[in-house]
Amino acid sequence: MEYLLAQVGIAVFAMSGVLSATRQRLDIFSIVVVGLLTAVGGGTLRDVILDVPVFWLVDLTAFWVALGASFLTFIGIRFILRLPPRMLSYLDAMGVALFSIQAIDQALALGYPAAVAVVMGLVTSIAGGIVRDVVTNRPTLLLSREFYATPILLGGILYVLLIQLVPSPVIRLIAMGAIFVMRAIAIRWRLCLPLQLTLKIDQLDLTELNGEKR
Amino acid sequence: MEYLLAQVGIAVFAMSGVLSATRQRLDIFSIVVVGLLTAVGGGTLRDVILDVPVFWLVDLTAFWVALGASFLTFIGIRFILRLPPRMLSYLDAMGVALFSIQAIDQALALGYPAAVAVVMGLVTSIAGGIVRDVVTNRPTLLLSREFYATPILLGGILYVLLIQLVPSPVIRLIAMGAIFVMRAIAIRWRLCLPLQLTLKIDQLDLTELNGEKR
Amino acid sequence: MEYLLAQVGIAVFAMSGVLSATRQRLDIFSIVVVGLLTAVGGGTLRDVILDVPVFWLVDLTAFWVALGASFLTFIGIRFILRLPPRMLSYLDAMGVALFSIQAIDQALALGYPAAVAVVMGLVTSIAGGIVRDVVTNRPTLLLSREFYATPILLGGILYVLLIQLVPSPVIRLIAMGAIFVMRAIAIRWRLCLPLQLTLKIDQLDLTELNGEKR
Repeated sequence: MEYLLAQVGIAVFAMSGVLSATRQRLDIFSIVVVGLLTAVGGGTLRDVILDVPVFWLVDLTAFWVALGASFLTFIGIRFILRLPPRMLSYLDAMGVALFSIQAIDQALALGYPAAVAVVMGLVTSIAGGIVRDVVTNRPTLLLSREFYATPILLGGILYVLLIQLVPSPVIRLIAMGAIFVMRAIAIRWRLCLPLQLTLKIDQLDLTELNGEKR
Repeated sequence: MEYLLAQVGIAVFAMSGVLSATRQRLDIFSIVVVGLLTAVGGGTLRDVILDVPVFWLVDLTAFWVALGASFLTFIGIRFILRLPPRMLSYLDAMGVALFSIQAIDQALALGYPAAVAVVMGLVTSIAGGIVRDVVTNRPTLLLSREFYATPILLGGILYVLLIQLVPSPVIRLIAMGAIFVMRAIAIRWRLCLPLQLTLKIDQLDLTELNGEKR
Repeated sequence: MEYLLAQVGIAVFAMSGVLSATRQRLDIFSIVVVGLLTAVGGGTLRDVILDVPVFWLVDLTAFWVALGASFLTFIGIRFILRLPPRMLSYLDAMGVALFSIQAIDQALALGYPAAVAVVMGLVTSIAGGIVRDVVTNRPTLLLSREFYATPILLGGILYVLLIQLVPSPVIRLIAMGAIFVMRAIAIRWRLCLPLQLTLKIDQLDLTELNGEKR
């Protein structure tokens, strides 16, 4: 069941990469490369940092799912554009909820502290999207005020706190559900954090730091 | 012979990095850094993903060739600009043909399936160029409709199919030749894939997916 | 003492990430993610390339310092903006001087040749800043003519040359001091390399190379 959900998550990530790539006129191979990068990028970075074998080299299923989903999205683009866009967002939210909790489990099982595990959950779920935005030349998802990284962080923190108190599989489901529900609410009502928790500075005199370009 | 060709490929990659960096007024050290990144970026990513020692840490020749080529390009830029631009493109096509087939061999020798090997061939030949475009703030080569990733993919698929039927060094040469010829044709006649194999969507209602910025 | 300085360096890197992220209106979590990426990105890349355990997985202190500094910068932004901006630049220069020499030591201790060690020093000190610029959608620091990468390179070369002649801890301090002083001079008088050592080309006919977009 969870394995199946993970494949759905991979497929939705690949679709989001393909959809993002179609803003420019790209050929089918470049589009499929962007789809692949988006789908497996986050997990690859996690595995490289943790120095474990890269997941899609171990189990090729994820690779084929990402490839197949990218191709099918390219071919069936007219059909996909007629889907309610929020349906894709909800599927994406499912993938994100699942992948972040799975990554946290993996890091905890390798003996890493809870804080590292939460970061690994975040890396796994958002790095693919950041790579997608960078290679397709768009503002990265970190630059959006949308409630995207926050549910993953909050859900991850909730999970590592609860799992130490009650080491039960139910906690996993609750944490995944919490991330999904937070994302779903954000998608449905276009939520973002209140302005007090955001920051924007227009002053120019901070351009000095760390070799930044003037 | 092949070793020599690989060094030529590295040098041409470094040159392409330097030429790309000269669109902004950069100083010599930044330019050399971009040249190095372009030359060794793809192979480094391949080695990190496959978890083998990074190639330019094992054999420093590639490192020195990349460094030297970057410096020489900086110094001899007036001379290089007088070369026919297609000459550089043909040398680049040679490097790409060689590196992708070498990476496929490496992945197959490590026991990875053919599909992974083909992806590794692609990663090795294009990741350096993508990094070059990202750090010099330009649209990545994936966003170009040019026939660049496609010959590598097609040649790689051809290679892994044929090498299983006829495990002969001749197959290697044929595959490299096929990639080079496809690239050369694309360079000579500015080929790209027919429009039916490309995709571009102007609708705005797909911006919902995966935390993309509105 | 050196350990303490390293934590200061990490904290300043995180601050520079946060300050860079505040140009767009981001929420606190995205900002903290950018801070973290900036602070640990360079060291992470170095460790992945050298195939040693990633430093912030080994010693969590750096991780907590980066996290704490990001949060405090977010909260205390009004206070930080009233600091003299050059103070942050000088702290950054200290971090850069320290991290590059430490990375060189690490690479030399692993048996790598001096040239590789110098590159590792550079990777460690600038990769975080490049990632920061890429995810916040700004021109990377490599595109600046500011004297940023150059002091690190020159100081690193000086260090590996001297340490082979006189293997003494004093050499370390001299090399760190040299990098810091070069950076400090650049910050104070806005130095950059003379025009003869820079390059900018406006001709369009070099767009052919390596699949670059027309």
